[in-house]
Amino acid sequence: MQRARLRDLGITIGSLPTGQYNAITDVPGVLVGHETIISDEGRIARTGVTMIVPRHGDIWGNHAFAGIFNFNGCGEMTGQPWIAESGVIHTPIAITSTNSVGVVRDAMCAYPLEMAEKWQTPPSIAASWLGSLPVVAETWDGWLNDIGAFHVTKEHTFKALENASSGSVAEGNVGGGTGMICHEFKGGIGTSSRLVPCFGEQYTVGVLVQSNYGSRGLLRVDGVPVGREIDYRKVADPWTVPPKGGSIIVVVATDAPLLPVQCTRLAKRATVGLSRVGGVGHNGSGDLFLAFATGNDIPMGAEAPLNLKMLPHDRLDPFFEAVAEATEEAILNALTSAETMTGWQGRTVHALPLDELQRVMAMYRAH
Amino acid sequence: MQRARLRDLGITIGSLPTGQYNAITDVPGVLVGHETIISDEGRIARTGVTMIVPRHGDIWGNHAFAGIFNFNGCGEMTGQPWIAESGVIHTPIAITSTNSVGVVRDAMCAYPLEMAEKWQTPPSIAASWLGSLPVVAETWDGWLNDIGAFHVTKEHTFKALENASSGSVAEGNVGGGTGMICHEFKGGIGTSSRLVPCFGEQYTVGVLVQSNYGSRGLLRVDGVPVGREIDYRKVADPWTVPPKGGSIIVVVATDAPLLPVQCTRLAKRATVGLSRVGGVGHNGSGDLFLAFATGNDIPMGAEAPLNLKMLPHDRLDPFFEAVAEATEEAILNALTSAETMTGWQGRTVHALPLDELQRVMAMYRAH
Amino acid sequence: MQRARLRDLGITIGSLPTGQYNAITDVPGVLVGHETIISDEGRIARTGVTMIVPRHGDIWGNHAFAGIFNFNGCGEMTGQPWIAESGVIHTPIAITSTNSVGVVRDAMCAYPLEMAEKWQTPPSIAASWLGSLPVVAETWDGWLNDIGAFHVTKEHTFKALENASSGSVAEGNVGGGTGMICHEFKGGIGTSSRLVPCFGEQYTVGVLVQSNYGSRGLLRVDGVPVGREIDYRKVADPWTVPPKGGSIIVVVATDAPLLPVQCTRLAKRATVGLSRVGGVGHNGSGDLFLAFATGNDIPMGAEAPLNLKMLPHDRLDPFFEAVAEATEEAILNALTSAETMTGWQGRTVHALPLDELQRVMAMYRAH
Amino acid sequence: MQRARLRDLGITIGSLPTGQYNAITDVPGVLVGHETIISDEGRIARTGVTMIVPRHGDIWGNHAFAGIFNFNGCGEMTGQPWIAESGVIHTPIAITSTNSVGVVRDAMCAYPLEMAEKWQTPPSIAASWLGSLPVVAETWDGWLNDIGAFHVTKEHTFKALENASSGSVAEGNVGGGTGMICHEFKGGIGTSSRLVPCFGEQYTVGVLVQSNYGSRGLLRVDGVPVGREIDYRKVADPWTVPPKGGSIIVVVATDAPLLPVQCTRLAKRATVGLSRVGGVGHNGSGDLFLAFATGNDIPMGAEAPLNLKMLPHDRLDPFFEAVAEATEEAILNALTSAETMTGWQGRTVHALPLDELQRVMAMYRAH
Repeated sequence: MQRARLRDLGITIGSLPTGQYNAITDVPGVLVGHETIISDEGRIARTGVTMIVPRHGDIWGNHAFAGIFNFNGCGEMTGQPWIAESGVIHTPIAITSTNSVGVVRDAMCAYPLEMAEKWQTPPSIAASWLGSLPVVAETWDGWLNDIGAFHVTKEHTFKALENASSGSVAEGNVGGGTGMICHEFKGGIGTSSRLVPCFGEQYTVGVLVQSNYGSRGLLRVDGVPVGREIDYRKVADPWTVPPKGGSIIVVVATDAPLLPVQCTRLAKRATVGLSRVGGVGHNGSGDLFLAFATGNDIPMGAEAPLNLKMLPHDRLDPFFEAVAEATEEAILNALTSAETMTGWQGRTVHALPLDELQRVMAMYRAH
Repeated sequence: MQRARLRDLGITIGSLPTGQYNAITDVPGVLVGHETIISDEGRIARTGVTMIVPRHGDIWGNHAFAGIFNFNGCGEMTGQPWIAESGVIHTPIAITSTNSVGVVRDAMCAYPLEMAEKWQTPPSIAASWLGSLPVVAETWDGWLNDIGAFHVTKEHTFKALENASSGSVAEGNVGGGTGMICHEFKGGIGTSSRLVPCFGEQYTVGVLVQSNYGSRGLLRVDGVPVGREIDYRKVADPWTVPPKGGSIIVVVATDAPLLPVQCTRLAKRATVGLSRVGGVGHNGSGDLFLAFATGNDIPMGAEAPLNLKMLPHDRLDPFFEAVAEATEEAILNALTSAETMTGWQGRTVHALPLDELQRVMAMYRAH
Repeated sequence: MQRARLRDLGITIGSLPTGQYNAITDVPGVLVGHETIISDEGRIARTGVTMIVPRHGDIWGNHAFAGIFNFNGCGEMTGQPWIAESGVIHTPIAITSTNSVGVVRDAMCAYPLEMAEKWQTPPSIAASWLGSLPVVAETWDGWLNDIGAFHVTKEHTFKALENASSGSVAEGNVGGGTGMICHEFKGGIGTSSRLVPCFGEQYTVGVLVQSNYGSRGLLRVDGVPVGREIDYRKVADPWTVPPKGGSIIVVVATDAPLLPVQCTRLAKRATVGLSRVGGVGHNGSGDLFLAFATGNDIPMGAEAPLNLKMLPHDRLDPFFEAVAEATEEAILNALTSAETMTGWQGRTVHALPLDELQRVMAMYRAH
Repeated sequence: MQRARLRDLGITIGSLPTGQYNAITDVPGVLVGHETIISDEGRIARTGVTMIVPRHGDIWGNHAFAGIFNFNGCGEMTGQPWIAESGVIHTPIAITSTNSVGVVRDAMCAYPLEMAEKWQTPPSIAASWLGSLPVVAETWDGWLNDIGAFHVTKEHTFKALENASSGSVAEGNVGGGTGMICHEFKGGIGTSSRLVPCFGEQYTVGVLVQSNYGSRGLLRVDGVPVGREIDYRKVADPWTVPPKGGSIIVVVATDAPLLPVQCTRLAKRATVGLSRVGGVGHNGSGDLFLAFATGNDIPMGAEAPLNLKMLPHDRLDPFFEAVAEATEEAILNALTSAETMTGWQGRTVHALPLDELQRVMAMYRAH
């Protein structure tokens, strides 16, 4: 059976409408770029980099409000101290393999410098220091990927930035998600979005996850205990349980005019979506969430007080529900999109069998 | 149909075994006391105080490690700064109505002083300052209770302390939970517990909630969308939607030897249980969680380094799952135990109809 | 020698200019009210309540951005969870004795309700829930005050609110500071302010402290080790060392248009002022800081996005320095203003001897 | 005049005694290694890496409790999420230039892998994942160093690890501190220690800073306003003011048996030392502090509860004062040790003139 997004299988999460692509790119100005590294030459590579680029790449010069929440801190996301301090993000967000956080980070420091040279300092590429605290997060792909080979390079990072585009987003075994595992099935990148009306305007909430966490038994799809009910031995017998731990990075984007504290509130609600799917924040899991809001302009080097808008806190409930729904669906999209992969040391991680998924869902919805 | 606990209805949450009473009191030395205030004389009262007393009341002299997590901070829990700073709790934990936090707090400051006088300073009642940063949390019962009447007194507080006992725990419309509302049905106090083996020992994780949050449509029972499916108009037509917001206080107790950082990790996992039932941390909700661990003695005024034990972090996953399961079940126990109540201004909040609940559950499990 | 403010003694802190009154009330719309309770009838009272009322009392209907920082958490400040969550303060700020936090808190819940009745709901007195998470902080006055007598009442609280006014602020043994001790000398309330230019506007930063912390030996005045050099035995021999611990509450106010994250940054800088005077955040000290900014209107129940202004982060350094300077001077004003007091159990706490202070300062500035 | 440590100049900070070397290496088992990169060939290099290695390098297998505090978050310190979550550090701590955080981080991931190969998995070099969340902090040396050249390599990182040794520690223009600037004078690496008795044992508190922050006017030495009084125009006229911002990394080590929450408390007290010298946490400053305690063994993969010791909180005040004093002195040691440096674009940063320092100190202590 061909891979599909969750909705293509007739399964819907929550009640809010999605954006056009049901992707984080439905938030105007948010681009996603993948650089996927799969190689069996020399040391086995099943890894990559995924970039989320706010403001059509203008983020170095026009910052965005942001907030973070670490549900379980067994992971890395550089750039957190400044976001926590200032509520501002000023670089794209990269997600990659654990052992590649450093190279991607330094590459992102280098990028605005090199672009400034190349383009003779166009206004959107800011001075050195602004690239110097970039956001790079990771999950661990060392089961399928020979992680000790440190495959990712500065060039891969630049390519992920250059690949960034709007529109539909590739999911599953792509970019930073290439070698990831989720609830013991093949995981990786997933995305989803929701539309939220407020004061007559329509805002978009988009979520992108790199999912690499969880045990099979806890997996639920729209509340149905799929992980318990699914006949996984049809897929592989004996069933190989990958090492526990794993992690999930959740990036939430919105075009609503939210303040930093409100972004933090949104980031926290990713926990709700994760919990619904079956995450509990296991000890070895780096469940790190970041939300940013582009509804206000934060130009670098402003020479006057900034004029901002803010949705009142008491209007945020639909945004919270949107984050929960979109996170839940983004994880499930990663699971239904990712394909079976064989990697390092001949290990195979199986895709979530979609026929079995549908059988279980139907069984619970027989009424 | 008579009120019941969830398991009496044949519904089980999760996979871990419960303790003897399926209550927070299964944790050795944890006592619970309620003082319920229901009156139609003068100003309408539907309120009270619930006390969780660690170490058989010895907590003033033998402290416990503790940690807190505020999933959504629209609420009050006094004593948080010292717990965050020191990782230590040194008083019982009171839960009451929003407008009674102060009187209960000051009463808890007075209690060890008065007991010291009365009992001529028995060893377990410590000096003044130790009672001076007590933990008092609240949820808002102003829909059924005339909250502006400030019903709760110092005497009620003392009674709740004196009522504290081990064994089974009254649930629903009792103590601090008397006037509470949950997912638009009658809520209040609920409790549950789980047993967790580790290194050949068996530890207990107990949870007690004062549940007063949520919208009907989001309510789920073991993943089944009961709030959406239930024919609530059989119960009341038209259906009255109480004011949004509400709150939930979750107290987690364990006898495992956990450090403060580990208690914080446990407190965070209450979010998972809450999310599974349908909480999203709405804007006006004070979703404040506290976990304490009695597995180490922290005697006041020690004259030598303390000897402690600590379970390694990589053994905590079953504890995390225990917190998630017990929180989920404690909320549901509050819902299935609480009875329909009519209160201030003649308002009625209906109990979750158990026959309807069972109908919906059966429907989803027809297979 | 008569008590005086620090500048009256010819001692200046820092380099920024002060406001008109060198007080937190220099921030437009900020009022301060004291209710001082001194009595030798029955149980000895040396206590009280101090209120800081933003926006001329309109704060219940027009909120303000705020942030908190707990340098050392051995203390209480109610209302912290909502400020941390939302970045908004919606009540006055009360400071009182440790054992009176509760009664003052509940009184502040009652106040808008009673005022609404009395004044038939004027627009500035908001509905019930808005008063329900008030901010009340404390330090411990149990050395000079019979703290077990629980002297403070609801009426005292209301009086402190009604006493609130602009202009010069009484310092030393007044309001919540009545029975406080600082660096082993008589402490209490102190205040100071600084003017900060930004983008052609002039903003005010005001600080008010209730100071009750510290050891004598660490006291410094403008860097001079006064605590070490002062001949305190001239004042009292033998010298009585009060119990260690103590606490300091610092409230920072500004009329600049700052966001919540920026208020948190200001609150943190109170640590700098405290450190300069000789605070180290001793274990038993509740060093809790709160900053609020009235430069933006946050009307309750807004029906459209709020329009805000924000000073860019890179303009905040002078504000940080203003907080540091004003905190340092506010503590010193408490010390130079407070008078020797005899209280409970005949104990005496001596005022900082101003002649000795000046002798030491002169000695270090002989050049 | 030759460079010297502060005490060689007859200036003493605080009252607690120092350890043998007055260095972080006085804490048993703590090693420090520098790799200094100074080159005028090709692109100008004034940079390097400093390593703090706990437990004689055994830290990968025998972890240590730790805590962090970000006084101002405009900086990077990888590894923070796991330390905040678990209270455990399991790698050495590297400090380097802003743009080298990534390469050093990935090198530290690689190190245990390569050592395991080289040494055929000696017990102290743990499995892959343990090196995968290393701690790397930075300050910005882009004034004297051509930071866009990304000078630091994996080999430099390994060398810094291999250079790690006990005993006296080189200060000033070495390792990560090579190109740093402090209060407009040449800064860099500084260290100091204090001895603290508790329950009949003697513990050591050591501090190492990489200091790169501050304005000249605020510099104080033991309270004396040296920055204001010093005749810096004797040194250079006109005086060049380097770009504002800068940062300071403070690492605190102790052999006392402290828990994670207690390490966090120690980390916070670095703020006191910093404030005394004249730091205010300027907007662009990454003032990130980390404290670790080796008094308990935390062996990886323990198969039984760990046995720990803990000093009671009420014994910590001398430790807090030790951190404050040692931080203050470590910064000053950096200033008195660092030598005038000329670097990128011919810029010169001058050493703090020691004769002028002594003239000002004498003037204030004439009595």
